Amino acid sequence: MGTPGTVVDRGLEGIIVGATALSDVDGEAGRLTYRGYDIAELATQASFEEVAHLLLFGALPSIHQLGNFKVRLAASRTLPPTVLEWLSAMPLGAWPMDVLRTAISALALFTPHPSEGAHLSSPRSAIDLIAKTPTIVAAWDRIRRGLRPIDPLPSLSTAANFLYMRTGKMPHPDAERALDAYLIVLADHSLTASTFAARVTASTHADIFASTTTALAALGGELHGGASGAVMTMLLEIDTPARAQSYVRARVEQGEGVLGLGHREYRVRDPRAVPIEAAARDLSEVTNTRWFAVARALETAASSELAAAPQTSLYANVDFYAAPLLYALDIPPDEFTCLFACGRMAGWTAHVLEQRAANRLIRPQAAYRGPAPRPWSPLERRDTSRPSDDVR
Amino acid sequence: MGTPGTVVDRGLEGIIVGATALSDVDGEAGRLTYRGYDIAELATQASFEEVAHLLLFGALPSIHQLGNFKVRLAASRTLPPTVLEWLSAMPLGAWPMDVLRTAISALALFTPHPSEGAHLSSPRSAIDLIAKTPTIVAAWDRIRRGLRPIDPLPSLSTAANFLYMRTGKMPHPDAERALDAYLIVLADHSLTASTFAARVTASTHADIFASTTTALAALGGELHGGASGAVMTMLLEIDTPARAQSYVRARVEQGEGVLGLGHREYRVRDPRAVPIEAAARDLSEVTNTRWFAVARALETAASSELAAAPQTSLYANVDFYAAPLLYALDIPPDEFTCLFACGRMAGWTAHVLEQRAANRLIRPQAAYRGPAPRPWSPLERRDTSRPSDDVR
Repeated sequence: MGTPGTVVDRGLEGIIVGATALSDVDGEAGRLTYRGYDIAELATQASFEEVAHLLLFGALPSIHQLGNFKVRLAASRTLPPTVLEWLSAMPLGAWPMDVLRTAISALALFTPHPSEGAHLSSPRSAIDLIAKTPTIVAAWDRIRRGLRPIDPLPSLSTAANFLYMRTGKMPHPDAERALDAYLIVLADHSLTASTFAARVTASTHADIFASTTTALAALGGELHGGASGAVMTMLLEIDTPARAQSYVRARVEQGEGVLGLGHREYRVRDPRAVPIEAAARDLSEVTNTRWFAVARALETAASSELAAAPQTSLYANVDFYAAPLLYALDIPPDEFTCLFACGRMAGWTAHVLEQRAANRLIRPQAAYRGPAPRPWSPLERRDTSRPSDDVR
Repeated sequence: MGTPGTVVDRGLEGIIVGATALSDVDGEAGRLTYRGYDIAELATQASFEEVAHLLLFGALPSIHQLGNFKVRLAASRTLPPTVLEWLSAMPLGAWPMDVLRTAISALALFTPHPSEGAHLSSPRSAIDLIAKTPTIVAAWDRIRRGLRPIDPLPSLSTAANFLYMRTGKMPHPDAERALDAYLIVLADHSLTASTFAARVTASTHADIFASTTTALAALGGELHGGASGAVMTMLLEIDTPARAQSYVRARVEQGEGVLGLGHREYRVRDPRAVPIEAAARDLSEVTNTRWFAVARALETAASSELAAAPQTSLYANVDFYAAPLLYALDIPPDEFTCLFACGRMAGWTAHVLEQRAANRLIRPQAAYRGPAPRPWSPLERRDTSRPSDDVR
């Protein structure tokens, strides 16, 4: 390498690469705050709209501000007709996160480019993205089922409107409340891989559409946003609470942990698991108690069975109870990550605005560990004995 | 913050976050090598296809391998008909990089998802992306001019086929050679912001389509891939070589540098500027010498005028002579970044494969610099005196 540099962990684990005023993850105490407010309080007291306002503007809104903010969000929900046409032409087997990422990227096409004087990394664009993400997810949910998308209803909250756009029916208040709590709890989490990738993109002065497209690309990875869907698949496989104990035992015997337990940042129980568990339990009482009961039995079994496995976390993370919560809302497991994105869009857009407000291009270095300098070798002198099976 | 960590520069400048065997940027000596081969040699001796093979598979191909590789590339150029239809329906004023990013993201929809057992981060997908990127760029180039896209010609090289798809005519050999050199020189550059963002995305186990969509999102930022287009706008403004000196003087008086001179990584002249300058000069002799002459006069003027300004680099970077080169190929300046992407797609895909071959989730931390913990404040007790003008 040319310039000698500081070598850090290649996962950047424990490396502090910047500052944020948006959220604080206290992994020791098991606490998550958004701009100083504990998510335990926000999840039970606030609405998703208040939380989105808090993240974007730094303060909980007054009654008047909240009214204006809700009107802005509701007025921004409708998709450009061309994007809706493209959604209708997508292959029915397409993965929902690929659809969502492509549609969010496409929104940029219907917005004037910064070189034309538009300010695409503005609160206005952030509101646009927060408002349109659930519309895309609900539209694709219906299209893949062979149904026509339903227009958003401006009078409904973000959570209620999403459920309405999926079914065409007014949701049960407990369903609205459960989804609202989910969106609040998922709204931000400091620098996850997706948020960091979005900030790297924003640091090049790419606009907020490009930056959130990046975030969606990273969230789609199974190590990041894919866990809740996998937890649900596991719960469906376990099938009844009575089988939880034997499932955990079999995992321990294979030297494996249980999906949805443990988190890189938290030494104790993920603070997001508490309100998500409460919301999932309340919702299960008005829908179907089965999958919440399987999850609850599984965490209980894990805390006794895994106590002997010191390397394995016993604690539920946010993905664990999110699975029965979203499933009780009738959302298919392969769309769970899209719901995660509906909440996190508030955090991503706020991070992009924060990055742009005090920007510095994020551009690290890599150590070179390849062949030493070597002379050019003309085509006719190269080894022809090697099989040409490179392309797998 | 919860876990105390190591605080590093927030632009990650000089911070080594991993290793690569793909390319080595020697900023002191002004040398760039791909897997040990100097780009000065590659740009004059190799074809873009040989370089893409080198980056993806670690070795220059034998005659037989190269033949197979070219057949694979040529066979992968055609777009899914639905993607071509969507391109035809995009707003004609859409920014080419937004179009390219959205179309690359859409390619994932037409490929089985990893959960269905497909291996989307494979050399096969890399070839698909390298082959289809120029087809998308050329198709959009024609569609925005009101023309029908032209099908790729399998008998042509990547560079010649791109030029053919834009015009429907066989390109001049010098034009093919100039574009080939450009694609080679731009094919990789260790960890730029776009490549790093792509690796962050790949580190979550997101697939190669999501990862390269991320790279395109980051490349679109004006601090990253946008420089060549801006250089061309500047050359057009300067208009004649005779005005170069006064232009530089005016910039110096305003305390500013000249676009396309200087690079964060290189202390000396960007090694990529040499072959790009040579290719641009050769091409100018068969097309139009004007813009190369303006660029040449500008670099000469800068080296005398800026010598007194010690903070300012005197040396052309890769973007500087890329501008007259691409302009001589009749490519409009707002598409220059898309041509950059056509070359860099080889590097991005190789980096994604390298990341996945020895993966670790890239997830740094941020220092929290926001409000201290504060109690929830109910809506009716909040300050209502603040104006509701947050939404700009």
